[in-house]
Amino acid sequence: MTLYIGVAGTSQPEPELVGLAETLGRLLAEAGATVVCGGGTGVMAAVCRGAAAVGGTTVGLLPGGNRHDGNPHLSVALPTGLGEGRNVLLVRASDALVAVGGGYGTLSEIALALRTGVPVVGLRTWSLALAGRPVNAFPVAEQPDEAARLAIASAEVHATG
Amino acid sequence: MTLYIGVAGTSQPEPELVGLAETLGRLLAEAGATVVCGGGTGVMAAVCRGAAAVGGTTVGLLPGGNRHDGNPHLSVALPTGLGEGRNVLLVRASDALVAVGGGYGTLSEIALALRTGVPVVGLRTWSLALAGRPVNAFPVAEQPDEAARLAIASAEVHATG
Amino acid sequence: MTLYIGVAGTSQPEPELVGLAETLGRLLAEAGATVVCGGGTGVMAAVCRGAAAVGGTTVGLLPGGNRHDGNPHLSVALPTGLGEGRNVLLVRASDALVAVGGGYGTLSEIALALRTGVPVVGLRTWSLALAGRPVNAFPVAEQPDEAARLAIASAEVHATG
Amino acid sequence: MTLYIGVAGTSQPEPELVGLAETLGRLLAEAGATVVCGGGTGVMAAVCRGAAAVGGTTVGLLPGGNRHDGNPHLSVALPTGLGEGRNVLLVRASDALVAVGGGYGTLSEIALALRTGVPVVGLRTWSLALAGRPVNAFPVAEQPDEAARLAIASAEVHATG
Repeated sequence: MTLYIGVAGTSQPEPELVGLAETLGRLLAEAGATVVCGGGTGVMAAVCRGAAAVGGTTVGLLPGGNRHDGNPHLSVALPTGLGEGRNVLLVRASDALVAVGGGYGTLSEIALALRTGVPVVGLRTWSLALAGRPVNAFPVAEQPDEAARLAIASAEVHATG
Repeated sequence: MTLYIGVAGTSQPEPELVGLAETLGRLLAEAGATVVCGGGTGVMAAVCRGAAAVGGTTVGLLPGGNRHDGNPHLSVALPTGLGEGRNVLLVRASDALVAVGGGYGTLSEIALALRTGVPVVGLRTWSLALAGRPVNAFPVAEQPDEAARLAIASAEVHATG
Repeated sequence: MTLYIGVAGTSQPEPELVGLAETLGRLLAEAGATVVCGGGTGVMAAVCRGAAAVGGTTVGLLPGGNRHDGNPHLSVALPTGLGEGRNVLLVRASDALVAVGGGYGTLSEIALALRTGVPVVGLRTWSLALAGRPVNAFPVAEQPDEAARLAIASAEVHATG
Repeated sequence: MTLYIGVAGTSQPEPELVGLAETLGRLLAEAGATVVCGGGTGVMAAVCRGAAAVGGTTVGLLPGGNRHDGNPHLSVALPTGLGEGRNVLLVRASDALVAVGGGYGTLSEIALALRTGVPVVGLRTWSLALAGRPVNAFPVAEQPDEAARLAIASAEVHATG
């Protein structure tokens, strides 16, 4: 059974996130997972580049209606025309989600995953608080290898559960 | 021009939020706004009850396919069958969004609004941080009257902008 | 219990359809129904104008993201940003659907309604055939009064069923 | 540039359609196209089986939320949770659409494609009429080879246009 790991991340990351995302993509593909993302630039392109470099399958759920807007490392590029509505699709298509960096789109995908029971792993991403108290809603990885490992493990549980 | 104020809030709030939400709904309706929400119970029912009590218009975007799941205070109840996908619709239908309480669905609506440029006002809701530093992404009201005032003011700017 | 009657129709109708649609809207509103449509011009504006003239409630599910694109006869105008994806929402929000005229968007709404069990009534709209044989998939009305009557009757069954 | 050919077809076809769909899938894959469909049984499974038999890529946009509902011949299975809303996604993801057989879901996909300018090819599917006159809205193929050829040719124009 193939696991599908969603990667949420901004099109405009700080430079250091790009390398982390590329490593994450490679590790997920080496573990046999299909990588699903928004199909764009930045974190999304980096994770796909990493996965594609080792022969992995990468799926992009594009916000617009034009396939040519997808990054060049996609095995399958699907224009949705839903705008940010595709964020919901990304979560539904994922057995687990890795959130990379601090975009608001990424935050929406974290929240939708938490709401619908899809496991989340954070990597240099948002932390949450309510009424002044931290809410540790999902595990946080320090490095891509830990993120990949946690994501694969939680996806296995989710996909078979 | 009628302003549409979205109210995001959980179906299972702490008791004190219910009263705040009902007051918020009343104040929004008294200001002439149409209230849009997920149409369910808890915060959603309370805000609709408050608005309906003073003759306001309330619109519910229901996650399921059955109109009867809507709360009894809706002027217009629209089954969407989109599940959490209706959260995107709530944000798109709103000139400003008031987020009440700490559900993950509410967090997704905050994030989608921030991502798409819809003004957000918080009332006893999430706060955010990145890399250990607070991110004040939206104004926070202490009470429903302040939340209503801020939401109406930002909605006016958004709707005419 | 309020019935919701969807009206599907093109933005660029032949002139004679405009009058029929306006009469249809008036009759649906007089019967106490809420009229749901795509919120645009042509048939959509005409049916809303007819309903609004007698104090009816009209809901527009707009394809784009801008509320100002809605016609001026809407009680509630909801930008969806889903493009033709809003056609699915129109069908889900309707207890019965009246299809007016020959647009392809209208055909999609007929088909989605038939697929999902929402009663359809035709008024100067498409007819279907398979392998050279006519398929009478829905009742066809000759005039708006018959269309309104059939739609209300089938919506009552659907909404309580 | 990879072409994406959507195939619309019912889960409960007449037996003879199954063989035609399988041949269609094989021919599309041999032409290098990625096949996109609803991912279910019947025509959808047959077209995927045909494509997969010659090493083609097959993408399923599932109506529900469970990946296990996809047929076993999918390279990529994406649960959407949108119900018939996924029909819109199928059309958006396709450079051309082949409609096979006479389901109402198939009719909705024909109509959505015609509405949004995606080329359609029919194979044993619906024909349309307005006011008693046939409307030849799309070319009709007699056999899978003609359908594949027409679809590839129109997809090339659409994808580069």
